[in-house]
Amino acid sequence: MQAPVEAVRIERTDTSGSSLVDDLLVAEEPLEIRLGHGPLDDRSEFRLSVTMRTPGHDHELALGFLFTEGLVNDRGQVLRVEYCRNVRPEEQGNVVRVELHPTVEVDALRWQRNMYTTSSCGVCGKTSIETVKVTCSRSMGRIPELTTALVQALPERMRAAQTVFKHTGGIHAAALFSATGDLLLLHEDIGRHNAVDKVIGALLQHGLSTDDRIMVVSGRAGFELVQKCAVVGIPVMISVGAPSTLAVGLARQRGMRLIGFVRDGRHNSYSPEST
Amino acid sequence: MQAPVEAVRIERTDTSGSSLVDDLLVAEEPLEIRLGHGPLDDRSEFRLSVTMRTPGHDHELALGFLFTEGLVNDRGQVLRVEYCRNVRPEEQGNVVRVELHPTVEVDALRWQRNMYTTSSCGVCGKTSIETVKVTCSRSMGRIPELTTALVQALPERMRAAQTVFKHTGGIHAAALFSATGDLLLLHEDIGRHNAVDKVIGALLQHGLSTDDRIMVVSGRAGFELVQKCAVVGIPVMISVGAPSTLAVGLARQRGMRLIGFVRDGRHNSYSPEST
Repeated sequence: MQAPVEAVRIERTDTSGSSLVDDLLVAEEPLEIRLGHGPLDDRSEFRLSVTMRTPGHDHELALGFLFTEGLVNDRGQVLRVEYCRNVRPEEQGNVVRVELHPTVEVDALRWQRNMYTTSSCGVCGKTSIETVKVTCSRSMGRIPELTTALVQALPERMRAAQTVFKHTGGIHAAALFSATGDLLLLHEDIGRHNAVDKVIGALLQHGLSTDDRIMVVSGRAGFELVQKCAVVGIPVMISVGAPSTLAVGLARQRGMRLIGFVRDGRHNSYSPEST
Repeated sequence: MQAPVEAVRIERTDTSGSSLVDDLLVAEEPLEIRLGHGPLDDRSEFRLSVTMRTPGHDHELALGFLFTEGLVNDRGQVLRVEYCRNVRPEEQGNVVRVELHPTVEVDALRWQRNMYTTSSCGVCGKTSIETVKVTCSRSMGRIPELTTALVQALPERMRAAQTVFKHTGGIHAAALFSATGDLLLLHEDIGRHNAVDKVIGALLQHGLSTDDRIMVVSGRAGFELVQKCAVVGIPVMISVGAPSTLAVGLARQRGMRLIGFVRDGRHNSYSPEST
């Protein structure tokens, strides 16, 4: 198990001059996800992808990634996630293998292409949204009532619960809350998409309902993050920063609530469409 | 030409209540990059990748992407970048084709795998850094003298020059400065890696030297951003936020200056290693 932070000797400069100090930095290491059928010693496996991530909760990350990218759509299709042991010592903990149910086909050709591309589908925002619609095999969870006070409180509640951020000041977070504002899941990662995948992977592992759930993310809301919530059926997303046009388009098409720019007692509601 | 922003009707909530307003959001659309030999009407081309980006300066983005991912390493290897016309109307402006010099091989198999993966190379931070070293065909530019005042000034100078940020409050930026703090290039994008690729593509287009150049980026400094500067030979990177362990490791290995956490008169120097 690798640590999510690492001490590094740096030079700190302020108005009084410079000094050498030990600083805690967010760890970043590659994670390779492999797919296969049968037990781990079966060498017939497919190298799906490599992502740069902060070590920790890699099984949740792999599970969330497979779901949100539409490769699997039912928890039962994943039999096991484990670290590969048949790798070099320095790779230990950086390679996970997902054992799929024998009925799940691994379409290597599809996955060797970029995740967003489908040759039949075109390259424009509208078709990007349509592609997500096809991937959404789960129904959207019930949208909870949201008070202004709750919307304002959640980003700060997430921030207060972050452990790596406290030490490093430089990591993204995603958190799942109940309709009453209880923190259910929280994950931090150098990559915001990984943080969301870890939360979704944990949600699936625990078999949690998506009814009345709220995903809160640090930073901005791009298409990719809203896509991940849409695919798994999380009905509300709150981002500290602003969303993109395509993120709003997708949220509206899927009937999600998308709230952003939460700061200083103000926030914006981007979806559903205001009339 | 698509616009980098779009007006969207939203509901704004503050302490006095909610109202409907037109808000400007950052545009996000897919961009497909195709590679080929010969003129555009030659249909033998390879679909390299699709990235979600803010429209604008797509030729720079494609050029920068090809360089920083190590597919080409000399400006002369790229004969032309142009928007594909043989696409559906709704895809116009979202597909660019790069015409490569006939001597440049397009290794499709390599590119259908994830950019970071090389099967011979292993999956750990150390080998990630080694892989970048192999990709760096250009020498590192000369490192300029940096005063504390200059380091403190540059992020704010970049922010002041951002046009999309002013309207939307939600977009990343990357900028290239001279050693005396003159702004040479600035690009904004919903994806921070795209903003850096656009700046690097423009640098290559204009044939600018990398000596005494400084790349400034909004947000955090992950491995991928430092990698892009390392590959093209930009010797200094300044990020507003904190870097990751792997970003620091790469900067140190390549002899780059890496400065981060620039705020309130303070900053940290992460590379070269302090002794």
